[in-house]
Amino acid sequence: MAQKPSIPKGTRDFNPTEVSRREYIISTIKKHFQTYGFMPIETPSFENSDTLLGKYGEEGDRLIFKILNNGEYLSKVNNDDLSTKDESVITPQISDRALRYDLTVPFARYVVQHQNEIAFPFKRYQVQNVWRADRPQKGRFREFTQCDADVVGSDSLLQEVEFIKLFDDVYTDLGLEGCTIKINNRKVLAGIAQMMGAEDKLIDFTVALDKLDKIGADKVKQEMLDKGIDPQAIEKLQPVFELDGSFEEKIGQMKNLLASSNIGLQGIAELEFIKENLVGLELKTTHLDLDITLARGLNYYTGCIFEVAAPAGVAMGSISGGGRYDDLTGIFGMKDMSGVGISFGLDRIYLVLEELNLFPETVKAGVQILFINFGEVEASYCMKLMFRFRESGIKTELYPDSGKMKKQMTYADKNDIPFVILAGEDEIKSGKLTLKNMKTGEQNQLTADELIQRFK
Amino acid sequence: MAQKPSIPKGTRDFNPTEVSRREYIISTIKKHFQTYGFMPIETPSFENSDTLLGKYGEEGDRLIFKILNNGEYLSKVNNDDLSTKDESVITPQISDRALRYDLTVPFARYVVQHQNEIAFPFKRYQVQNVWRADRPQKGRFREFTQCDADVVGSDSLLQEVEFIKLFDDVYTDLGLEGCTIKINNRKVLAGIAQMMGAEDKLIDFTVALDKLDKIGADKVKQEMLDKGIDPQAIEKLQPVFELDGSFEEKIGQMKNLLASSNIGLQGIAELEFIKENLVGLELKTTHLDLDITLARGLNYYTGCIFEVAAPAGVAMGSISGGGRYDDLTGIFGMKDMSGVGISFGLDRIYLVLEELNLFPETVKAGVQILFINFGEVEASYCMKLMFRFRESGIKTELYPDSGKMKKQMTYADKNDIPFVILAGEDEIKSGKLTLKNMKTGEQNQLTADELIQRFK
Repeated sequence: MAQKPSIPKGTRDFNPTEVSRREYIISTIKKHFQTYGFMPIETPSFENSDTLLGKYGEEGDRLIFKILNNGEYLSKVNNDDLSTKDESVITPQISDRALRYDLTVPFARYVVQHQNEIAFPFKRYQVQNVWRADRPQKGRFREFTQCDADVVGSDSLLQEVEFIKLFDDVYTDLGLEGCTIKINNRKVLAGIAQMMGAEDKLIDFTVALDKLDKIGADKVKQEMLDKGIDPQAIEKLQPVFELDGSFEEKIGQMKNLLASSNIGLQGIAELEFIKENLVGLELKTTHLDLDITLARGLNYYTGCIFEVAAPAGVAMGSISGGGRYDDLTGIFGMKDMSGVGISFGLDRIYLVLEELNLFPETVKAGVQILFINFGEVEASYCMKLMFRFRESGIKTELYPDSGKMKKQMTYADKNDIPFVILAGEDEIKSGKLTLKNMKTGEQNQLTADELIQRFK
Repeated sequence: MAQKPSIPKGTRDFNPTEVSRREYIISTIKKHFQTYGFMPIETPSFENSDTLLGKYGEEGDRLIFKILNNGEYLSKVNNDDLSTKDESVITPQISDRALRYDLTVPFARYVVQHQNEIAFPFKRYQVQNVWRADRPQKGRFREFTQCDADVVGSDSLLQEVEFIKLFDDVYTDLGLEGCTIKINNRKVLAGIAQMMGAEDKLIDFTVALDKLDKIGADKVKQEMLDKGIDPQAIEKLQPVFELDGSFEEKIGQMKNLLASSNIGLQGIAELEFIKENLVGLELKTTHLDLDITLARGLNYYTGCIFEVAAPAGVAMGSISGGGRYDDLTGIFGMKDMSGVGISFGLDRIYLVLEELNLFPETVKAGVQILFINFGEVEASYCMKLMFRFRESGIKTELYPDSGKMKKQMTYADKNDIPFVILAGEDEIKSGKLTLKNMKTGEQNQLTADELIQRFK
């Protein structure tokens, strides 16, 4: 009967320390979301399949977890269909629902469905799990948590300025100094493609350009050649490969390069506006970098795009991202709602903070005080005391059994409980309890009132 | 292309007010869990199917949401099996994973899997969603949130005492006064069955007895007769139907009734121990009631069982429950781990607080102050000011577009923002901003420093 228990590949159990640390990150992010005026919403873990399918490309559709219909789900399936064993035909007949793949599409669905209850511009945040049937690897899980903030219903670029400040506030507050906020603009990428005469190859060209950091200019050029981009066009890219200097200097070089492209110049103007409006709004620990090679998911972004890289030396993909999309709600029938949003990847941020040893000592799950259990009479005495401690908000517990002292002390040790209170016969008589510091071994005699004052 | 968006039956979107109110309940419960020494864990949303299936009875298995395997899940299905269209044969071949049905079985799996990392007794809490393909109705959803606390590895009845206090602390803190904590003991039910000579009909008898409140003694007796319980045995139940008086008086009557049943008397002794240990530990707003008809899920409870009823007049099933189980981890191969736990039903508690209008006014999602946007120059001035407010932890936002004043004021109204700040040309010159109270219409001229001091 007994099974050797395990959990599905790519999923995780979180122990008390891990939950506390995750909640520390989440509450830090939420605090800033709220300070910036974002309001929380939540959507169901599963959506109707047609809400999700077709929104993330073919690969995305494959990675979506589908839920089997309940009851006699096979009874209505066509026999001929069944005999083909063709999943693309069978799945829609036996599965009406699917697990959330990201928070953005459900958010767009929410906005359209509830448009009459919403006062636009709508600033929402959402911290929930998403599921992807991806191959698990470091920093990539099948169930993970996204922390998103978006504004829909305004095309003001001040939002982009605020999001940059928000990245800076969150990462500064988490003690993760030295992050780089990379910024680019899809219009600039479109402008480059136009300038090259390669508008029809926009995706191939940006996918290749995106790899400049990793594989170098020569290999990027080769990939573009392989994709059928004209060698002369690629030559025109040379200034992009050589782009250097400060934010403003790069802007200047790109202005020259894109002089003939309206859309490209518009992208540059947007970047300039954002940079100018950041003057006087100090970035505390992050660095803003214009990264013309940054592409991100091309499916719905139309304006500025962001990505945050962990401090130099930490091997981890981007830990945040985002951008502006001009027509996300259009897929659900609501046109002309410009939106912009960002997403914090909780699981990756966790790994980075862990690697750099940046979790504060105070982020802990356990109680402050354990009452040692000496037997029925003493336990009953301690129970009454303990509830007085708890009334004062002090996290405390009584060891439930009057077992061996050594076992109780080991319990305190293993659970990282910093203090124990010993209240045996003598202590009860004198009204002075023995407080033992588990780290130093130091013992003190104190009354209950004194102890409550001390730990409150 | 456009779809009319909707969500699956039995699921819900939560708007900012709803999320804030849910978080208010959750944070209240968590605070007390922590004060009582429980530590948080989390488990994956889906488990391997064999972890869940067979643990909740046949009906439970049917209500579990199964996840379709990814990829070419049909390729390995036997053709003969497929042509039968028999779901009980096909489902195990195309679905390896299933969504969590409750938090208790995953917790038992967790304890067994991580037993070498845990210092027992292990006190854990867990606040996560569960999914059931149940027919939706008032207070019953297909995705809902459970807030569980359990202790495993100790059979001390002091735990039961603490859980009663915990119920009282949580409901008192939520302002939900007048709840009834019903207590019973599975051993008492076994004793009654023994005394009747109906041990083999224990389940039928308790299921019928459980309905005493709703259908009355006569109908309960009829149901027992229908189930084949001997009329003479049913006559012996008469004192149970007539049980009355205080907790102690009921205990006295049950002692007489169960005089010949060892297990029954043991159950009574446990209830007495708990009641005695509550002396001096005042229950603030709840009432403890011995309810001999209380049965709860019979599958794994073996000792005390609890259920909390909302205050009289509120039509809602139980809002909390729990009990002791002596061998939950046994299904995963770990014997002799007594456990006891309780569960708060977030969604039902929400409905009760809403019905009784008990959510504090202060539980709100939005910002405190909206800066009105008068144009590019003013917006830039306000941005810098706004970040000073945010640095002081004040929730504030700038309307992103310099649209009509009326539109901006409507936005503040609809989002329940209590104050707006007007900083036009005059205000910028004088350095005194206009603060408008949206409720009273009152306006004041204050410097930025004065404003920050006021809202901090």
